[in-house]
Amino acid sequence: MTGFVSLVGAGPGDPELLTLRALRRLREADLVLNDALVDAALLELAPTARRFFVGKRAGRHSIEQAEIHRLMIRAAHRGQRVVRLKCGDPFVLGRGGEEALALEAAGVPYEVVPGVSSAVAAPALAGIPVTHRGLASGFAVISGHAEAAYGPILDGLAPGALTLVVLMGLRERAAIAARLIARGWPPSTPAAIVHGASHAGGSTWRGQLHQLPAAPPAGELPAVLVIGAVAALADQLGLARAPLSLERSS
Amino acid sequence: MTGFVSLVGAGPGDPELLTLRALRRLREADLVLNDALVDAALLELAPTARRFFVGKRAGRHSIEQAEIHRLMIRAAHRGQRVVRLKCGDPFVLGRGGEEALALEAAGVPYEVVPGVSSAVAAPALAGIPVTHRGLASGFAVISGHAEAAYGPILDGLAPGALTLVVLMGLRERAAIAARLIARGWPPSTPAAIVHGASHAGGSTWRGQLHQLPAAPPAGELPAVLVIGAVAALADQLGLARAPLSLERSS
Repeated sequence: MTGFVSLVGAGPGDPELLTLRALRRLREADLVLNDALVDAALLELAPTARRFFVGKRAGRHSIEQAEIHRLMIRAAHRGQRVVRLKCGDPFVLGRGGEEALALEAAGVPYEVVPGVSSAVAAPALAGIPVTHRGLASGFAVISGHAEAAYGPILDGLAPGALTLVVLMGLRERAAIAARLIARGWPPSTPAAIVHGASHAGGSTWRGQLHQLPAAPPAGELPAVLVIGAVAALADQLGLARAPLSLERSS
Repeated sequence: MTGFVSLVGAGPGDPELLTLRALRRLREADLVLNDALVDAALLELAPTARRFFVGKRAGRHSIEQAEIHRLMIRAAHRGQRVVRLKCGDPFVLGRGGEEALALEAAGVPYEVVPGVSSAVAAPALAGIPVTHRGLASGFAVISGHAEAAYGPILDGLAPGALTLVVLMGLRERAAIAARLIARGWPPSTPAAIVHGASHAGGSTWRGQLHQLPAAPPAGELPAVLVIGAVAALADQLGLARAPLSLERSS
């Protein structure tokens, strides 16, 4: 008797941005292992499942990655249908690849269910297309968690060639801005911070690259930094009126 | 009487990768304007809508972007619920920003419904996480349609710092590989081409950067190029066995 593990992207927060397959997997699940940022409303979609919080929170005790692997594998070996529910997309800065490798090594059948990544959706819901004709024909997504990792990446990006989207980068925003300006990005480059896209209570800050250090600090909601000419489109695409709901009217 | 326009991401192809909101909008739609690459099964989810193909195909007559704007705006002014259904995510290389600006300018109420982007999902379904601890802590997504646009971007990317994902780049794969190698990317950099992820008949090519020119040419299905160390993970994550279905077992 072997179970099955689904590595599922939960999207940016709003349950309406789940995929049909993600919803189906949640409804059928025996066990859901979820991250810190997964919205409570999403978990209610798995009414019959045991739920286990395996998220990491800054400054609090958190479960080891290897323990997440053990939990998934043990449940699958007991024949359970396991949903590993991860914010956004499981393979965008979410250690989903490590989890897939662990399942592969353990001989556990599994699948990957891609999700709507906050890297694109959070800017979009704030009125910022990550690409736009004449402004940016590409974008880069990086983690702003640790300067040792993002530093060399930022140093290797020509100023303004791509829209830069930074996940988990709010705490490091001053260091990121300084590094980009030192690299030659104009201090006046449009920038935005999208807090809690698709969550109740979301908000957006709009300014310039050199103003990032003075932007409001983090709340409980996830934040996405957007740096590049496209950030200014938020001013036209309704940011001021209905920034972060999915629906808006002009 | 004013209608409403939804700029909806259709995801990579499989209807199961639609979001719940996208499905709802399709079911309620009076008019669906769809691109060439939108799967026919998706259109069946909008049974009561008129459907209008506005896609562009290489070498065939295609509708002008301004005409798409006019169609959306005219239908909305007649009170219709319009779904502008775009492959992947509407704001990833899809001119969704231009459509939003046109609706804004015309005073038409609209929303953006983010979708699962092929830029992340196609690699994922082929066993390639675009980020992976120790291999890549970020990724870049670009259009490979025109060298005038992608050339300067590639020249501005330090070799190997990010996973490079190229949409619409199959035709230009030799030029892209040559440019990256000239820029200093090792010719042995792992590379993959994912054809038709989540579509029936999908397949994946795996090789090295210098072998891209000799990779099999395009079929009818969309193709995504992935260049970087993470592409090699496809060999471990089941590429050879069940490359492009959503479900797989080890």
